[in-house]
Amino acid sequence: MKVLVINAGSSSIKYQLLDMTSGDDLASGIVERIGEEMGKLTYKTDTKEVIEQPFPTHREGMVEIINLLTDDAKGVVKDKSEIAAIGHRVVHGGELFFEPVEINEKVLKGIKDCIPLAPLHNPGHVTGIETAMELFPGVRQVAVFDTSFHQTMEPKAYMYGIPYEYYEEYGIRKYGMHGTSHKYVARETAKLMGKPLEECNIITVHLGNGASISAVKNGKCYDTSMGLTPLGGIIMGTRCGDIDPAIVGFIAERKDQSAAEVVSTLTHESGLKGICGSNDLRDIHARIEKGDKRAELALDMACHRVRQFIGSYAFELGRVDAIVFTAGIGENDPEYRARSLSGLENFGITINQEKNLNWDRTPSYISDDDADVKVAIIATNEELEIANDTVAVLGLK
Amino acid sequence: MKVLVINAGSSSIKYQLLDMTSGDDLASGIVERIGEEMGKLTYKTDTKEVIEQPFPTHREGMVEIINLLTDDAKGVVKDKSEIAAIGHRVVHGGELFFEPVEINEKVLKGIKDCIPLAPLHNPGHVTGIETAMELFPGVRQVAVFDTSFHQTMEPKAYMYGIPYEYYEEYGIRKYGMHGTSHKYVARETAKLMGKPLEECNIITVHLGNGASISAVKNGKCYDTSMGLTPLGGIIMGTRCGDIDPAIVGFIAERKDQSAAEVVSTLTHESGLKGICGSNDLRDIHARIEKGDKRAELALDMACHRVRQFIGSYAFELGRVDAIVFTAGIGENDPEYRARSLSGLENFGITINQEKNLNWDRTPSYISDDDADVKVAIIATNEELEIANDTVAVLGLK
Repeated sequence: MKVLVINAGSSSIKYQLLDMTSGDDLASGIVERIGEEMGKLTYKTDTKEVIEQPFPTHREGMVEIINLLTDDAKGVVKDKSEIAAIGHRVVHGGELFFEPVEINEKVLKGIKDCIPLAPLHNPGHVTGIETAMELFPGVRQVAVFDTSFHQTMEPKAYMYGIPYEYYEEYGIRKYGMHGTSHKYVARETAKLMGKPLEECNIITVHLGNGASISAVKNGKCYDTSMGLTPLGGIIMGTRCGDIDPAIVGFIAERKDQSAAEVVSTLTHESGLKGICGSNDLRDIHARIEKGDKRAELALDMACHRVRQFIGSYAFELGRVDAIVFTAGIGENDPEYRARSLSGLENFGITINQEKNLNWDRTPSYISDDDADVKVAIIATNEELEIANDTVAVLGLK
Repeated sequence: MKVLVINAGSSSIKYQLLDMTSGDDLASGIVERIGEEMGKLTYKTDTKEVIEQPFPTHREGMVEIINLLTDDAKGVVKDKSEIAAIGHRVVHGGELFFEPVEINEKVLKGIKDCIPLAPLHNPGHVTGIETAMELFPGVRQVAVFDTSFHQTMEPKAYMYGIPYEYYEEYGIRKYGMHGTSHKYVARETAKLMGKPLEECNIITVHLGNGASISAVKNGKCYDTSMGLTPLGGIIMGTRCGDIDPAIVGFIAERKDQSAAEVVSTLTHESGLKGICGSNDLRDIHARIEKGDKRAELALDMACHRVRQFIGSYAFELGRVDAIVFTAGIGENDPEYRARSLSGLENFGITINQEKNLNWDRTPSYISDDDADVKVAIIATNEELEIANDTVAVLGLK
């Protein structure tokens, strides 16, 4: 059985076709610059192909994806009818969606209702879903939300200390992001420990250019670092994370900017990039090697914040079975991991530097064998998780 | 030897005269509504007196304080010459002041230079200092800063993940507040433990209507929860603490407000008050008793945030010898303390509920005798600390 996973943005469509028997990635890629004069399509199987041509709308992009997937020479399926189901990544499900759901008119309306909470993402998802429904008539489709894993948080964790009516009227609360990744690595960590997920307390550390940390209590999300928007939480590549909100007013006054302009700076020109001018960790490490103080500070601050959130979540959980790192930085930066968890022997957390430096990409521990708290690295696979959710929701196979 | 402690605001003067031999509070009170049509002066010795009369400027207020202190019937000194020194509380010392200093022209200029960082406080301090210098010619005066204790923080703790030039150009960084209180209770906790302060790691939890938590490492401030302004950190009476800063833009757009207006709401209409309509803990507890869900949520959220910061700081410190509660709520609300530290047995933190409920106001532990981490309550005394600093800086006696 084959499942197509779609992540449609405002001017792009990421796609991946998975074989659910093997879990293999059959084909994947992205259509970019939809609506621009010249578009670009990447198509990866064993080989990689790049096609430059205009894609006036999502429809033309999706048609070309189907053409390639079913092409006699380059294709991986004979006919699109081999695609059993389609899973769509949807960034924001607000408080409407607690779990993946099969898409129907009501669900589509719900995703539209969440547009104010994700104005840059949900409109693209809607277009992607509508296009897929048109081009795959009769194929069942599922929406998998970045926010839904976090919907088990209690109000004390997701409410902000702001006027309550702002929650009632505008839905201002913590929603969290990267839920598909947190859920995936939490479950894989439980497998690694050989314990039922429902008995595990895990801190999941998703460190990509966007990054968030979750406290998973008895298998369910108990708290997470991202907030109303993906700007909240820890220091990221270009985002500042949680701060004293008076800073927004302070900058607005000094730069004569609107709140929206300040938030844009905090989103795109801050984080590691704001501190040292770069959000490329390879660059940052190279500069640190050469004695660059600003790069050192950027890394130091980012790891400091990761440590803080892990400490917070340890105290929220009361007992931590494992800490798991995932995503680009989490998987590939041993120095980042080591700095974030140094000096925590008293809390049962010790990293084995040999294991940390030589992780072989299989789900495994990098903690010392006798450490109370397991520290693991697990490569995230959000597309596989979306495909698994799709199969599960539809009761296929 | 007697020291007068002054805390001058934009329209008020708080004062306290201390006997430094006994540490006794000889007289204290406040002049309020300076510059308004009708002012009010409170004067407390063994008795309490309230005088209503206009105080056109700080000068008239200070003159009346001196009159009362030296009054034949109500006074506590024969002549103002008995006052050996004056200590001034100053909210913001920016990065200029690492410790208390004797006031001279240069110091006064420095306090003025910090006005952009504390526009509501430092101007009043300057007026208070200038008035005191005029009315107490020849008496040496000392400035004690709320921020100076926190100046030992490392950049990784005090820098924000925002464009670095905002630090260079506008001084945007974490400064912290309540430093005098954190310093006082940290030292008293070390005394209680019978250990040199330089060997103690202590988390100081100052919970008043304004509130902050500090991580004290080897006796020095290593991190603190308040930020650029007193809006940062934990949830307070009417303040939201650190949040996803995109919320400021989100509210600004929906309410058609400026960033400054939103920040004002987050400062004055948020925190416990924003959530449940009240920031009076007695009221909140009474409502919880009656089953009021919103009051319950407010307390739950506030304690959740205290726990998070304590967890963060525990992980920053690596080893915690003691946690100490102080200030209005910290000293008087056993429920608040117990909720903030429940379920932390795995981290060596257990509260003895009998001791917690029956604290006798002397510096003492409320943790179980065999707990790894001492939990103490120590009544803060910022005026005494300012007076002590004043004596120390001047090398008196």
